[in-house]
Amino acid sequence: MRAIGFETLVPPPADGSTHGRLGRLTTPHGVVDTPAFLPVGTNATVKALDPDDLHEVGAQMILANTYHLYLRPGHERIARLGGLHRFMAWDGAILTDSGGFQVVSLSDLRSVDDDGVTFRSHVDGSVHRFTPELSVAIQEALGADIAVAFDQPVPPHASGRAEVAVATERTHRWAERSLAAHSRPDQALFGIVQGGLEEDIRAGSARTIAALPFDGVCIGGLAGDETPQERGRALDVVRQTLGADPRPRYLMGLGSPVDMLDAVDRGVDLFDSVLPARVARNGTLWVPEGKLNIHNARYLDDGAPVEEGCPCRLCRHFSRAYVAHLFRADELLGYRLATCHNLTFTLRFMGLIREALAAGTLPQLRLESSAARVATRPRDVTAKLARSDGAVAVKTGGLPWDRSGGGGHGITRPPPPRSEEEAEGRRRQGEDPADPRDAHERRGDQAEAQAARGDRGRVGDRPAGAPRGARR
Amino acid sequence: MRAIGFETLVPPPADGSTHGRLGRLTTPHGVVDTPAFLPVGTNATVKALDPDDLHEVGAQMILANTYHLYLRPGHERIARLGGLHRFMAWDGAILTDSGGFQVVSLSDLRSVDDDGVTFRSHVDGSVHRFTPELSVAIQEALGADIAVAFDQPVPPHASGRAEVAVATERTHRWAERSLAAHSRPDQALFGIVQGGLEEDIRAGSARTIAALPFDGVCIGGLAGDETPQERGRALDVVRQTLGADPRPRYLMGLGSPVDMLDAVDRGVDLFDSVLPARVARNGTLWVPEGKLNIHNARYLDDGAPVEEGCPCRLCRHFSRAYVAHLFRADELLGYRLATCHNLTFTLRFMGLIREALAAGTLPQLRLESSAARVATRPRDVTAKLARSDGAVAVKTGGLPWDRSGGGGHGITRPPPPRSEEEAEGRRRQGEDPADPRDAHERRGDQAEAQAARGDRGRVGDRPAGAPRGARR
Repeated sequence: MRAIGFETLVPPPADGSTHGRLGRLTTPHGVVDTPAFLPVGTNATVKALDPDDLHEVGAQMILANTYHLYLRPGHERIARLGGLHRFMAWDGAILTDSGGFQVVSLSDLRSVDDDGVTFRSHVDGSVHRFTPELSVAIQEALGADIAVAFDQPVPPHASGRAEVAVATERTHRWAERSLAAHSRPDQALFGIVQGGLEEDIRAGSARTIAALPFDGVCIGGLAGDETPQERGRALDVVRQTLGADPRPRYLMGLGSPVDMLDAVDRGVDLFDSVLPARVARNGTLWVPEGKLNIHNARYLDDGAPVEEGCPCRLCRHFSRAYVAHLFRADELLGYRLATCHNLTFTLRFMGLIREALAAGTLPQLRLESSAARVATRPRDVTAKLARSDGAVAVKTGGLPWDRSGGGGHGITRPPPPRSEEEAEGRRRQGEDPADPRDAHERRGDQAEAQAARGDRGRVGDRPAGAPRGARR
Repeated sequence: MRAIGFETLVPPPADGSTHGRLGRLTTPHGVVDTPAFLPVGTNATVKALDPDDLHEVGAQMILANTYHLYLRPGHERIARLGGLHRFMAWDGAILTDSGGFQVVSLSDLRSVDDDGVTFRSHVDGSVHRFTPELSVAIQEALGADIAVAFDQPVPPHASGRAEVAVATERTHRWAERSLAAHSRPDQALFGIVQGGLEEDIRAGSARTIAALPFDGVCIGGLAGDETPQERGRALDVVRQTLGADPRPRYLMGLGSPVDMLDAVDRGVDLFDSVLPARVARNGTLWVPEGKLNIHNARYLDDGAPVEEGCPCRLCRHFSRAYVAHLFRADELLGYRLATCHNLTFTLRFMGLIREALAAGTLPQLRLESSAARVATRPRDVTAKLARSDGAVAVKTGGLPWDRSGGGGHGITRPPPPRSEEEAEGRRRQGEDPADPRDAHERRGDQAEAQAARGDRGRVGDRPAGAPRGARR
């Protein structure tokens, strides 16, 4: 008896017009309709929201970060307090990642060997060591519905072929050790496919992981600095290798609606990212036509809701003018309302994808979505204005995941801050978005990391580009 | 036809054992049971809460700040957007203050003459001028249920008798001008009694204001650096002067439960303060036995709710351990949950006062409350521990309201920060509590201002000191 069940309700059509599939994941904490997006609750809270808010935005499963919870408040403490669900009062499903990404991306000091990774805490500088066995033990203590095997991701563009090969081999050995260590019968365990952008290594990794008795297959090392085309090829390689494998496929770290639509088309069932929530806290609100930068002065006098017909808490009760005022006054309520909106937008968009899969109209949805991304809508000055804000200011942090040109997301970069004061000034503009505690909470989502470090008012997420249908 | 109605449901008993009274204020936006406490929504939001939260904590009326809303987003803008109720989506009652306190306490540059006050904005340094006529016009544009006449408060201890006399005379002339300027029939207007701690000036002010056709009487210039005894004498002078005057009496800026209980006993019907919410955001949670400093390490392992039986969002769903974790991780949800709790605590305490007034048992409630303040409860280590944290760290800002020794609240002060770094370090510990935007949002509440500037973990509110009955 497995801890979770997964069934494909509508398989991909035989004509190959899409590889997307409609499914249902059954967990000890409820059903998750797939394709699904998981909001990220790094520190046992999806930032600014409480569990009622999470239900209201439509979340069925969330992700929590093993690395962060191990460091603070500690997995043993959470276990003593009754486990993560009880601790954070969330009765829906939870997936914990393995911490593999965070220990190699968040930590200043890290040393990877065949046994594990030694790293320094971003909280207090103390030195710690993760092994596959410890990662599994932490996740069993947290008690999520789904745990993930410990892996060694490498940043796609920053890593040479030899480096990718070594890390992927190591990930395979750690996958077996994670499986051997895992003992909790009410918790599923997913393996992670690595392989960077090397197609043969990626295919070999998919074969190796699929041959092991995991409950699901994660696709790691993407949602980073690769182009959409590169990501697409890597996903196709994994899909072709997996073939008719019945298990759920989870692309870690992707959160832009158009990117998720493309990945669904290539057979992905699960996603997570801090992106929608993080850009919301920076004042970027997603709407079907693109995005609103709520810091723009025009919204101060705009009595309309952020998105007409949106059922979220922000759009039900308040105007653009009010949320624009809250952001200017740095009022905490603004962060909550903006987060509610962007997560509602994202989860409704996933609902739209599921409807299209059920109706067999995913190819049309993709066409509409592409059209929406390039369309000029003269009547929609708001969207035009938001779209004109194409340049993106980011602070490069010197981490491997930051080294690429970032061309894949069409993003340009200013130089790093010239002084500590400038860095501090940028940090203080948001709720400390450049704080290392915030950066890279999730696996390699380049857009997200950039948005997190961008100057306020020039935040660089990609336009949501959802088609008109997302209005529903 | 007046905009509001006020009826005394249970008058003070003839035996003089208390001067407290049970009442009911009827406004265009619902009934307010008195004695009542008004949470403060400075920038058209009670910090961290939305209107559903306000209803849930039991708020019937809130206060919004004329000075802040005039500067940002602007009263004319709010009027164009349909008024303050619609802007902030609050369907309960609203009272706006006159801005008199803020222009003399918040601004660096201020110049008071008989016509009005010239001051510099704390937001952007621009120069503005308030007159009684402008204050009334702003409040009519905001459209609160109750407006307040423009006044010139003076800090009790920092002001000599001559200064108090001049400011009080000016307040009287401004009261008449405010009345003459006020024209909105669906809005009540309250006058303000000043007079510092000079009993004859205070009595004369009460006579003067009571002789004018205001809808209610505010008592200003208190809740500052005076001792409880001095405040009590000033309140008694006002009460004796007002005699059988049927209008509601509103003591501006007081928010400590025991202080409010004392003031109710002296005939006060309405209160407001940022204190419960502000100390909550600093991690101080009020409980019947005193307070919890949630930064204390012991709470990290405490699976109990903050207050057993409390109906608030925090206590219903979460443990002390969880909220302690949220504050350590600087998670936004912590500020909302803590605020929900302290406001629930405060508003339930007012409910307890009303029950006692209805039952004729207010004197007993006062005795219990005094006992609770000095009682040692060996079994309640939490409360003992919280109480032992008596020292309070504050940064003196050089404003007149800061000059006193603060002995009235039994508070000791450390030296001001030795350097800008230290000041910055203190500021960054909270959500920038030392920011001038935050300080002194409300009329002279010394404890509140101190709490706002205190170091985290050494926040200096007075113990709540509520009797056991407040558990209900």
